[in-house]
Amino acid sequence: MAGGSHVIALDCMGGDHGPDVVLKGAELARERYPELRFRLYGQEPAIRQVLGSTPRIAAEAEVVHVDGVVLGSDKPSQAIRRARSSSMGLAIEAVKAGEASAAVSAGNTGALMAMAKIALRTIGSIDRPALVALMPTMRSDSVVLDLGANTECDAQNLVEFAVMGAAFARSVLGLSRPKVALLNIGEEDMKGTEELKEAAAMLRSAAVDLPLDFQGFTEGNGLGKGEVDVIVTDGFSGNIALKTAEGTANLVTGLLARAYRASFRNRMGYLLSRPALRALREHLDPNNHNGAVFLGLNGVVVKSHGAANVKGFANAVCVARDLVADNIISRIAADMASFRAHLPGAAPPAGADTAG
Amino acid sequence: MAGGSHVIALDCMGGDHGPDVVLKGAELARERYPELRFRLYGQEPAIRQVLGSTPRIAAEAEVVHVDGVVLGSDKPSQAIRRARSSSMGLAIEAVKAGEASAAVSAGNTGALMAMAKIALRTIGSIDRPALVALMPTMRSDSVVLDLGANTECDAQNLVEFAVMGAAFARSVLGLSRPKVALLNIGEEDMKGTEELKEAAAMLRSAAVDLPLDFQGFTEGNGLGKGEVDVIVTDGFSGNIALKTAEGTANLVTGLLARAYRASFRNRMGYLLSRPALRALREHLDPNNHNGAVFLGLNGVVVKSHGAANVKGFANAVCVARDLVADNIISRIAADMASFRAHLPGAAPPAGADTAG
Repeated sequence: MAGGSHVIALDCMGGDHGPDVVLKGAELARERYPELRFRLYGQEPAIRQVLGSTPRIAAEAEVVHVDGVVLGSDKPSQAIRRARSSSMGLAIEAVKAGEASAAVSAGNTGALMAMAKIALRTIGSIDRPALVALMPTMRSDSVVLDLGANTECDAQNLVEFAVMGAAFARSVLGLSRPKVALLNIGEEDMKGTEELKEAAAMLRSAAVDLPLDFQGFTEGNGLGKGEVDVIVTDGFSGNIALKTAEGTANLVTGLLARAYRASFRNRMGYLLSRPALRALREHLDPNNHNGAVFLGLNGVVVKSHGAANVKGFANAVCVARDLVADNIISRIAADMASFRAHLPGAAPPAGADTAG
Repeated sequence: MAGGSHVIALDCMGGDHGPDVVLKGAELARERYPELRFRLYGQEPAIRQVLGSTPRIAAEAEVVHVDGVVLGSDKPSQAIRRARSSSMGLAIEAVKAGEASAAVSAGNTGALMAMAKIALRTIGSIDRPALVALMPTMRSDSVVLDLGANTECDAQNLVEFAVMGAAFARSVLGLSRPKVALLNIGEEDMKGTEELKEAAAMLRSAAVDLPLDFQGFTEGNGLGKGEVDVIVTDGFSGNIALKTAEGTANLVTGLLARAYRASFRNRMGYLLSRPALRALREHLDPNNHNGAVFLGLNGVVVKSHGAANVKGFANAVCVARDLVADNIISRIAADMASFRAHLPGAAPPAGADTAG
């Protein structure tokens, strides 16, 4: 992957707004990171039309024309047949070929995951990749994974997610020793599934040399508090939690809007409260937390929200850049090696004894 | 259970506030339902002290003294040893003996479930009981189950939860034909675990004669919308969803409070907005949705929030009353019998043919 360390491949046709948001987002990201270069995949006429208004990236971007587009309604099995004939597929292939160090797409999540998994394969020590993203809390953002890549997970998968999530938090949130917890239905050791108990035991015994602080279990209400930096769960529960949080945020803000409309005094209160409400919206705006990463592959693949705006897509590009600049893949590989070396049974130190 | 149809057994020692909230809550519930009678279990001196200020229930309530109290920190295995020497245990035993038709406790949930399951056993056609409660939405409340009684569930369990949840919605929300959905990570048929797909197929084929409208799958953000009346899931995901919703509601209202404190104008906006904010708080107040029910047993057992106030405890008592008045247990038994009769293989109608 040498030579491509700051080249990002963009699927220009994904998302609700196509090339317009993708290219303007890339332009905004380059304002923050001038070293970024882009390879642009999609229908060239549509791309060229937008490039006129994005001078920062236009000069050096390479446009690769491809007619095919993965639709939101395509099943993963249909999409993978267009791995070499779609903007999404070619963006991923560019990472595989070392022409780019990351791919960013706002397209179909299932298709992106399937294509990326086939093209890039998992890092040797990782069994299954996971979808990871940031969620807003009362403090800084929290890293949550898996958000839906794996419906069912064993203890080994959960442990790998914990190590990958901690590496992600270090790269994207800049934390030196992130606090990591497993999502459970209680904080006591006896609660939850066998997989969770086993994963907790492994993390307690083997994460000793890793730059992470394992905190045991956290419950669903731990997601909004921000007391832990990385929350680890299977893809089913993670997806339920993510969407429940979205739904509840919509519920509360919807109820608030309804209450503000209920009387003249309330409407006056609304007018005076607009700055406060704007601050709330800003904190919860998904565009400020945009960029889900399909982590655990030999390459960085970032999924932008389909509905993201220019700022949102720029954030997804910046997440890709942070992970590349921080060598996330070798970091994960090194962390997993250290972890494995500390697992009971793996290269046991002389005289060691594991009871019961 | 004859003779006890409007007698409710109260564990007076459970919850953060003990007899004070329990008895005043019962007093308030009797204001709404004058036919209610109570059997009061707990330390008699403490109970008598409050009864002086609750004249409506004092005249007819029967006080049964017992010294033992189940603590919040007790494990279920410890609690069940005090089934006949604790206020919680005796309240449940009263239902078993037919001296009361429902028990209400604000005590330790795990202990209550364990004791109730042993004393009352499940309805013949129900494999596992589930914890069910109401959650606020943009419309009316939604019924959600299981909230944590069963960490892992098979298709049969999920189907039983759907039938029980619909019966609950009819009794407590007064709906004639509740809309029922399974919680999943996507709305398409191919999504989710094998258990979910199998449960959906069973509900589609066999719920035809039941007074419920099966809507397939819903996602986590369906919880706040109120588009379905009953949301069915395993106890792990249900508990994660419930607590994530609580945590997110706290996050949003906490961020709002912070925003209102951020400037003088915002503080003025807050003052003018207080009625709107009070309406929001009222809608989300857990006391207005109080009363989780351990459903599927031969008796009605209601768990009040430990932190519930008088209004909250009264709501829990009213939920118990609604379920008793509506004969929820025979309703569930009848619905399950109808459901089973329509399952493929069970008494197949002549000429029926089930393709591939």
